[in-house]
Amino acid sequence: MKCRKCDAKAIINMRQHKLALCKDHYPQWMLEQTQRFIEKYRMFSLQERVLVAVSGGKDSLSLWDILWQLGYQADGLYIGLGIDGGIGYSDESHHLAEKFAAGRGLRLRVVDVLETYGETIPEMAERTTRGKGRPCAVCGLTKRHVMNRVARDEGYDVLVTGHNLDDEAAVLFANTLNWAPGYLMRQGPVLEARQGMARKAKPLCRFYEREMVAYALVRGIEYIYDECPHALGSKTIYYKEILNKLESDRPGAKLSFYLSFLKAKEDGLFTRPQQGDGETGASGEALHTCPTCGQPTSAPGECAFCRLAIRIS
Amino acid sequence: MKCRKCDAKAIINMRQHKLALCKDHYPQWMLEQTQRFIEKYRMFSLQERVLVAVSGGKDSLSLWDILWQLGYQADGLYIGLGIDGGIGYSDESHHLAEKFAAGRGLRLRVVDVLETYGETIPEMAERTTRGKGRPCAVCGLTKRHVMNRVARDEGYDVLVTGHNLDDEAAVLFANTLNWAPGYLMRQGPVLEARQGMARKAKPLCRFYEREMVAYALVRGIEYIYDECPHALGSKTIYYKEILNKLESDRPGAKLSFYLSFLKAKEDGLFTRPQQGDGETGASGEALHTCPTCGQPTSAPGECAFCRLAIRIS
Repeated sequence: MKCRKCDAKAIINMRQHKLALCKDHYPQWMLEQTQRFIEKYRMFSLQERVLVAVSGGKDSLSLWDILWQLGYQADGLYIGLGIDGGIGYSDESHHLAEKFAAGRGLRLRVVDVLETYGETIPEMAERTTRGKGRPCAVCGLTKRHVMNRVARDEGYDVLVTGHNLDDEAAVLFANTLNWAPGYLMRQGPVLEARQGMARKAKPLCRFYEREMVAYALVRGIEYIYDECPHALGSKTIYYKEILNKLESDRPGAKLSFYLSFLKAKEDGLFTRPQQGDGETGASGEALHTCPTCGQPTSAPGECAFCRLAIRIS
Repeated sequence: MKCRKCDAKAIINMRQHKLALCKDHYPQWMLEQTQRFIEKYRMFSLQERVLVAVSGGKDSLSLWDILWQLGYQADGLYIGLGIDGGIGYSDESHHLAEKFAAGRGLRLRVVDVLETYGETIPEMAERTTRGKGRPCAVCGLTKRHVMNRVARDEGYDVLVTGHNLDDEAAVLFANTLNWAPGYLMRQGPVLEARQGMARKAKPLCRFYEREMVAYALVRGIEYIYDECPHALGSKTIYYKEILNKLESDRPGAKLSFYLSFLKAKEDGLFTRPQQGDGETGASGEALHTCPTCGQPTSAPGECAFCRLAIRIS
């Protein structure tokens, strides 16, 4: 198959877009598309300071690479979780993130959970019922807390993550299967700033996972191939498999599921008033402020992270 | 496994309810549950006249059987569609519906599409682009028209159909995959009367298909085993397979999907004001009246059925 834009051999064929591109035109197309999504969903401007949450995986490193090429002021944030899993998962991720940043002269901030809070994520998880043999809930809680803290303390305008379409569709699928109103109303490419938390944005939310893999490969980005060892058997992976079946029976199904959701939301399907253009609003629920860390929390008193971490220090 | 209510052998185990019942207690439980749903969703009262859409399948005949035992004034409506499919589908369905009614001294109204409109459903479908080799769209359109007409002309208060949980979950799944706002806002156990159309209700909407099969078997109801030959390969069957996978991995998944949707709707997830208790409202969109048949239609001028049928007469 040939590239739509030149005669070279195509390296990817995107059936849902009826578009095949070569190794030169594909990364260029990814840049153009990302720029278009950043503008369409009013994510951030060239004047704003952007903090990219970097895990060492293909999505976050590719996102940082794209933003860097597009000329955004994007620093990275790596959070050392202390996960080994027999494959040195966190060490390898950290190494790859540092190497990526050094190769491009980019600034990588690092927060090590063990150094900062006295325990690794698996250790924290063992102490709490939240864990139940799986540290994912504690890990998510901790990452959100640290990302929000660094973005606020260091004065970033926006915190961006590398969630791709497969991630977003799986979360939407989960929230739809149990019709979780708060999550449905909040999900979108942008979550506006609120109560001292930076705006959050997901510039890759319309790219399929396979498109991200192709981008990382063609750009020669070295990333950690392994999934986090704790993610095995997770619900998200289960929902991704179901969506993969839908996608293979009808190419474009995932994209259509996600985009029709955003469209319905923008057209006012859901009750609560949304800020901005309707796709970008926070859920509007009443929030409290944690007296210890100052971050928003859904109930009065300390937030879940401080209740967890306070026992350490 | 033993019956929860006596020592007899259980004929069904409903994992999502953690409930096993014997051949005597199971049909009794089905009656109690149906009565509970009729009241909960305010479907109809003992004083109202009920028209049951009867296809000759397990769901509609079992529904009629249940309503008859509960003492409701329920007449049947059989629509002869003229579908053969090499198995005499319509003839056999009609025969079984008549036999069921005669055995209980119930009144069955019959509308034959060929006699009334000059063509069978497959013939109508061949004439129109709606068909596209599959008469299901024309069939649905015609059945809705005939059911509404009979309910209105004969003064029934409510039209009930035998849609079970598997049917409702599959429709909800389809409407969620493409986030169809109008359909999402309208789906529920009851659709209130509007513009000369009778109220519609689905008393079986919380029973799994396998529960309906068990009911029909234990009650000795003779029904047509075959699916409509035209339904093979339909989207609804495809979505049912996906939901069956979800259900087998997590018993109760279908029920939870449907009930959490109703709950979210009742709690006001969706924008448009709902009538009644929020589960029962029509979608509230502006409707027009068909100048030929007097039924509501979404656009000015003749309704889709009259545009189709007028060419015959």
